Amino acid sequence: MLFCNIDLLDENFALRRGQYVGVKDGRIDYIGDTAPDGDYGERYDGRHRLLMPGFFNVHSHAPMTLLRGYAENLPLQRWLNERVFPFEDKLTDESVYWSTQLAIAEMLACGTVSFTDMYFFLDGMMRAILESGIKCNLSRGLTVFDDSDYGQLAAYQDNLRLLGEWRGAGEGRLLGDLCIHGEYTTTPKVVEAVAAQAKEHGVRMHIHLSETQAEHEECKQRHGMTPAAYMQARGVFDVPTTAAHCVWLEGEDFDILRDHGVTVACCPASNLKLASGYADIPKMLEKGINVALGTDGAASNNNLNILQDLYLFGVVYKGYYRDSTLITPAQALHAATRAGALSQGREDSGLMRVGCKADLCVINTDTPQFTPMTDAACNVVYAAQGADIKLTMVDGEVLYRDGEYLTIDIERVKAETQRCTDDIIAQL
Amino acid sequence: MLFCNIDLLDENFALRRGQYVGVKDGRIDYIGDTAPDGDYGERYDGRHRLLMPGFFNVHSHAPMTLLRGYAENLPLQRWLNERVFPFEDKLTDESVYWSTQLAIAEMLACGTVSFTDMYFFLDGMMRAILESGIKCNLSRGLTVFDDSDYGQLAAYQDNLRLLGEWRGAGEGRLLGDLCIHGEYTTTPKVVEAVAAQAKEHGVRMHIHLSETQAEHEECKQRHGMTPAAYMQARGVFDVPTTAAHCVWLEGEDFDILRDHGVTVACCPASNLKLASGYADIPKMLEKGINVALGTDGAASNNNLNILQDLYLFGVVYKGYYRDSTLITPAQALHAATRAGALSQGREDSGLMRVGCKADLCVINTDTPQFTPMTDAACNVVYAAQGADIKLTMVDGEVLYRDGEYLTIDIERVKAETQRCTDDIIAQL
Repeated sequence: MLFCNIDLLDENFALRRGQYVGVKDGRIDYIGDTAPDGDYGERYDGRHRLLMPGFFNVHSHAPMTLLRGYAENLPLQRWLNERVFPFEDKLTDESVYWSTQLAIAEMLACGTVSFTDMYFFLDGMMRAILESGIKCNLSRGLTVFDDSDYGQLAAYQDNLRLLGEWRGAGEGRLLGDLCIHGEYTTTPKVVEAVAAQAKEHGVRMHIHLSETQAEHEECKQRHGMTPAAYMQARGVFDVPTTAAHCVWLEGEDFDILRDHGVTVACCPASNLKLASGYADIPKMLEKGINVALGTDGAASNNNLNILQDLYLFGVVYKGYYRDSTLITPAQALHAATRAGALSQGREDSGLMRVGCKADLCVINTDTPQFTPMTDAACNVVYAAQGADIKLTMVDGEVLYRDGEYLTIDIERVKAETQRCTDDIIAQL
Repeated sequence: MLFCNIDLLDENFALRRGQYVGVKDGRIDYIGDTAPDGDYGERYDGRHRLLMPGFFNVHSHAPMTLLRGYAENLPLQRWLNERVFPFEDKLTDESVYWSTQLAIAEMLACGTVSFTDMYFFLDGMMRAILESGIKCNLSRGLTVFDDSDYGQLAAYQDNLRLLGEWRGAGEGRLLGDLCIHGEYTTTPKVVEAVAAQAKEHGVRMHIHLSETQAEHEECKQRHGMTPAAYMQARGVFDVPTTAAHCVWLEGEDFDILRDHGVTVACCPASNLKLASGYADIPKMLEKGINVALGTDGAASNNNLNILQDLYLFGVVYKGYYRDSTLITPAQALHAATRAGALSQGREDSGLMRVGCKADLCVINTDTPQFTPMTDAACNVVYAAQGADIKLTMVDGEVLYRDGEYLTIDIERVKAETQRCTDDIIAQL
């Protein structure tokens, strides 16, 4: 495809008007003021359109779209114990298949090209992911509350498949990560075993870290150290890790994350709705920690519209730290794109640069909210809606365009997901 | 129009499936499980659609769409003095006309049926409002820093027109309010004169109140009382008043507002982005204060998508006060609809009730974010986008439908607003 006469956000998220961008063999092949030589196939009319890197949603639980609106306005422990856990107990590969497709549909419609997910029923998830063409770093949610050996757990078998048959599936779009759900849901023995396996196989880790104050403080009581120090001490951070939330970091925690190249998956919508607290994003950025963005699952968000998290990232920390100069639009856009690609080990993505993967989205700027367009990055961060996305492209393939899905039977997916939810609720 | 087989949110924001709603002579004439007798004109196919009261945006500065993205990431005083004031100095009736139309277009597209605005160049605003068919409580922003008599100010002349020729224009859709911009931008003499005029004419008042900590504390230093106590002492609250922001209320302020029936126009987006602080919304609701919602102007928001403020209202106070049970979806929806109608003195609007004005909006529920629809109010508050609005009706007239405006030449409005912004920036 050749995007013709299109506005774009460059590597620094500055606006460049009337550009030509050629996509070939899944990569950005040309960026320039004039049309390139050569045949790129379809010529895309770029009038009133803004091209930018697609979004990376680096913390989600896709199948939890099934629970959207089911567990509401409760304290966290009741939310988990009375609503989420009993519901999850009724899941099947089939319900996970449909709900993952629904999640992917919502993500693609909002410009997301890749996500980092942690859940179970991986067969169902895998089918949905590979059929859709989206990128995903997938891990098997791992919780263990007794003295089991890691090798005896069901999760171990799933992890062998993530590290084996599934690794790099879909021409590399699928990457298998390993997972520790969190310090409070695992034993030190298992944490060490999984960390050693990650190191042995050279794969990445996905964890929850210091999401709630209770979790953070209880870890200190149990182990005499913070969750970050605990994970470091057990070798988790010996591999590149994405740590979701990081709301309650303190003291040396920031240095531990920075020194080990840990990515913080900031989930502002989830943190607000569950009243978990406020991550110290300004301090993380100042320290040079890689901060990326996640929606979390639809049980706590309740949407997978990354543009809403982008918006929240752009305003929530200004508000909480009482400084309207914190977090520039460019910093927010970096978190939602390049920082996410780096957290997934996708060095050649998340950038508007020749040679990078064509993981892109196109925004409609022919709307009131993009008028005037005095500073395009501001329009995107502070005014855009998910529905402003007109096209989402992964590895050069168009997966979503003008409201249509190229790889998902959306009517069926909506109906099946609603049916699965109704069936589960009827059992409860 | 007869909405057929449509889901709706009832007066308590509970879902009622497959209803029939007849609109006649600008009012809701019928609500029931079966089709009514009689001819209502067009039959609207309600499949995959949710009907609810339209939104009331009770604090805005519509022409500030011109400044969208122009004054960014600055401390409040520099934002005002270096960017906003010099820009506003270049406004004309023409630029205000176009930018108000743009603002109305954005509001209608997001389901807003009525707004409460405070600005200047009222001739331009008035034309835009009356042509569009939207409802508006309009007031003339009043600031005065010397010992001028109120009767000598330009604003006084505008106010006479608001109380005279313009009052009730557009078959009552336009209502003239009086305005004190804020304690810190007016003198006691003028405040008293305007308050007396409002009382004499039986009109409502629109003010800013305790938006920033500096404003709040400086008022106490100047007058020995809080802004709320100051406004009460000078008679402002002798008429129904909409007080925007109310972030820094303290002590007796809450009782003053409740006892005088003052509406708080909560503006969460603006308060976050300008880092103004957090209104104590839970306490206001507990006290029984009428709390409604506002977007504020596009220089501080930067959008007029009331669904985003509805979302923020639903999650921000959970997050800040660390209690995920605060602010139910029904409370948020009440603030965005009925509470706003009451604040405008429109007793017969903002409710899904036979006899009320047909100020309605229709939401598309055939989307991933509305799947599953386990609790429809949760989908609306936590997952909907502005673009999910398919139809906006004011006084029974369809003003926006399926992306088309019935009363606004949107292509011209976008082009003219962009031109006006470019012209002004070129002069600065």
